[in-house]
Amino acid sequence: MSSSASKVLETFFTPRLIVVVGASDTPNKIGHIIYKNLRSKFRGRVLPVNPKHEEVFGEKCYHSVKDIPEPVDLAIIAVPARIAVLATRECAEKGVRGAIIVSAGFKESGSFGAKLEEELKEITEKHSIRIIGPNCLGVYDTSSLIDTFFCSEEKLRRPKMGSVSLVSQSGALAMAVLDWMAYQGLGIRKCVSYGNGCDVNEVDLIQYLTYDATTKVIIVYVEGVSDGREFMKIAEEAVTKKPILVLKSGRTEKGSRAVLSHTGTLTGSDRIYEAAFKQCGIIRANSLQDLFDMSKSLSMQPPAQGHGILIVTNSGGAGVMMVDACEEYGLEVRQLPRTIIRRMKEEFPTHFITENPIDLTGDAYDTAFGTVLKEAFLGYKDIDGAILCILPQDPGITIKIADVFSEIKRKSEKPIVACCMGGEFTEEVAERIENIGIPVFPTPERAVNSMWALVRYGEILKDAHNDN
Amino acid sequence: MSSSASKVLETFFTPRLIVVVGASDTPNKIGHIIYKNLRSKFRGRVLPVNPKHEEVFGEKCYHSVKDIPEPVDLAIIAVPARIAVLATRECAEKGVRGAIIVSAGFKESGSFGAKLEEELKEITEKHSIRIIGPNCLGVYDTSSLIDTFFCSEEKLRRPKMGSVSLVSQSGALAMAVLDWMAYQGLGIRKCVSYGNGCDVNEVDLIQYLTYDATTKVIIVYVEGVSDGREFMKIAEEAVTKKPILVLKSGRTEKGSRAVLSHTGTLTGSDRIYEAAFKQCGIIRANSLQDLFDMSKSLSMQPPAQGHGILIVTNSGGAGVMMVDACEEYGLEVRQLPRTIIRRMKEEFPTHFITENPIDLTGDAYDTAFGTVLKEAFLGYKDIDGAILCILPQDPGITIKIADVFSEIKRKSEKPIVACCMGGEFTEEVAERIENIGIPVFPTPERAVNSMWALVRYGEILKDAHNDN
Repeated sequence: MSSSASKVLETFFTPRLIVVVGASDTPNKIGHIIYKNLRSKFRGRVLPVNPKHEEVFGEKCYHSVKDIPEPVDLAIIAVPARIAVLATRECAEKGVRGAIIVSAGFKESGSFGAKLEEELKEITEKHSIRIIGPNCLGVYDTSSLIDTFFCSEEKLRRPKMGSVSLVSQSGALAMAVLDWMAYQGLGIRKCVSYGNGCDVNEVDLIQYLTYDATTKVIIVYVEGVSDGREFMKIAEEAVTKKPILVLKSGRTEKGSRAVLSHTGTLTGSDRIYEAAFKQCGIIRANSLQDLFDMSKSLSMQPPAQGHGILIVTNSGGAGVMMVDACEEYGLEVRQLPRTIIRRMKEEFPTHFITENPIDLTGDAYDTAFGTVLKEAFLGYKDIDGAILCILPQDPGITIKIADVFSEIKRKSEKPIVACCMGGEFTEEVAERIENIGIPVFPTPERAVNSMWALVRYGEILKDAHNDN
Repeated sequence: MSSSASKVLETFFTPRLIVVVGASDTPNKIGHIIYKNLRSKFRGRVLPVNPKHEEVFGEKCYHSVKDIPEPVDLAIIAVPARIAVLATRECAEKGVRGAIIVSAGFKESGSFGAKLEEELKEITEKHSIRIIGPNCLGVYDTSSLIDTFFCSEEKLRRPKMGSVSLVSQSGALAMAVLDWMAYQGLGIRKCVSYGNGCDVNEVDLIQYLTYDATTKVIIVYVEGVSDGREFMKIAEEAVTKKPILVLKSGRTEKGSRAVLSHTGTLTGSDRIYEAAFKQCGIIRANSLQDLFDMSKSLSMQPPAQGHGILIVTNSGGAGVMMVDACEEYGLEVRQLPRTIIRRMKEEFPTHFITENPIDLTGDAYDTAFGTVLKEAFLGYKDIDGAILCILPQDPGITIKIADVFSEIKRKSEKPIVACCMGGEFTEEVAERIENIGIPVFPTPERAVNSMWALVRYGEILKDAHNDN
């Protein structure tokens, strides 16, 4: 499979000239919000199209896309469903490469809407135009700053540039995730809400993102996939280049019935999905929080080369919780060689526990974490990843602990994740640690789950390598 | 079982006169930090005891507790282990009712320490004194403001007064939890880190908190229990009065080995704990986050009378995730009667989904949530609890949605929990909703888990009632 098929989608993310069909001066109209957003942020050019107006925002408004005397790369269509079909046809005839149809009133609204959606499909079959939507929020891209999410910045903050890209069947979910990521200071590269997916679907988008050099991790929310075989083929190819995390809802019988009334998708048996995801190397998230946590570790840390784990903590209790979680995730809290234990014993007070999980107790100090990591992480090849638990309340822990970790991180290609538990000072410490590229989580179990994703992706890469 | 046995512990929480053995003017000494904290906050009186000083903080310092010419209720002992034993004996002989021994160097440090700990036990057997500790952080009580957590306020903020009380075998964990609760704006009533538990243990504390009218929810972190039979007897009694949430770590084989090196506790088979907890009506948390989430819902909402659940959402996708989670937790997203569906249909646009899970879509507005709750929650006896999912990014959702919920809450004795997903504006909305007493969680699955705790506690109460 070459990357050429996915190149046609490029027009959705880096168009030079966009038109907004339905652009308007009337506040609260979707065409108004989208046109206004694009005018103020988009790095290319944007023109208004609306047969009802001569001017929009004081600029010449075209009555039809066909009146525009130059090539148009992308049309955003925000008019009622019936008119949206006509406008799309005009775009197709003019040779516009892509259309994002945000309008609702298609398949999701009953049989008349379903017919309109069939017409859209016919247009894509006859012409070279590709369609995202209908009934979607469209695209947010932090490079070109194309943004068709018709939601004010006050209600929905946009995240900064990052290396994770999101593909979501649910628009509302994409919206909430963007807003949350912005709030958490996490970055995103591209986000697509593809709605009914009458043409461009999750398979196309995953394939496109596979060859998007700026995307390091692909996260996907789906309620069902349109073509299972194609999905698996594309995913198998994608995971050799970057991890794919999927949250597939409708896992249970009642859940899949709820999906049917939500998006009209037939989900099929969850066991089949589970097996298919596993086979093609997709990492499945079982909750939205798992999805967030694992995308964070996968975008910040390298995959692990094995499942041998070192735990370093200054709370014995949290250490035990981490060991429990490791066991449940199939990670091995691996025994250390006598020589390494001896070297640590020489340096530490007798009450520090120098067997893995290493417990530095309430008397822990910043450089004690450093000593352990040098001896048992950098210095021991059978350890594949380190999970740290730092309770910054202890007197010996200072904000400078991040510098200790920074030095270790520079010397290692093995993954490290951390848990910091507490309040205000803890947040400061956590922020410093995240700034050097180590993801921090608020509970022991979440840190372990995020390490599991790194171990799992390491296995997936190895399997793919062995298959070839 | 009467409450009299637990009354003797009252002295740890509401003493009139405290002494700090080891009080000192030297900063960073534990006796200094504790004495200083108590002087500035504790509502009763506090006196310094230290044979090395004539004065501490400019006040007369006693060389021995025996020199104090009036009755002492509680001694905080912060001197090296060997001296701590002598000081405890003096306290016992003077008739002091309680001692909190924060000093380390006992059972956890080897055989010599274990012998010292035996001496402490002998003292409690000969005298009426009770001991919390050794090797613990002691007590934090938001009423009397007794606070023996030797940690500065800068590193460990203290939470405000609330109705949850925490009993923790691990001091570090208690510290992190307090700090985190303060940061989240959550309240606590009493917190006890009992360390080695040479005398007062988790059983005594649970029994005491059962009869503490100000505690509504008891949360417990243990790595093992000292007397299983006694624990179950006390727990069975307690759960008829208030819920008990337990996080028991060392669930796995490796985890239980880690416990052994952490606190020297033999954990025993986890399956036995699981069965015992279930039998006596304890709600078990499987992770620290579950513990937090469930304690939040149990302290803010009444138990559910059954497991029939209503889901109301403005994101179909999040609705599906909730249905999946409900199925997995054994909660029933119950079908609504035709008449109720019809009444909602009359009021709503046709694209709103009026079957449970009710999906108000991106066109949701504040009062639409109110209409659903009136018809399908207040108006339908077979619904036992409501889980709301609010994405405040939608244009129709405003900060006033909290007022809508407030009205519903006033009219109902059934539990409501919510999920709000997003960023800054979402946090504002969530805060308003929490201020009226509805707990809010950041993901659908966590909201469902917190509702499960309310359903489970309802069952526990029913079982207890049927047994009597």
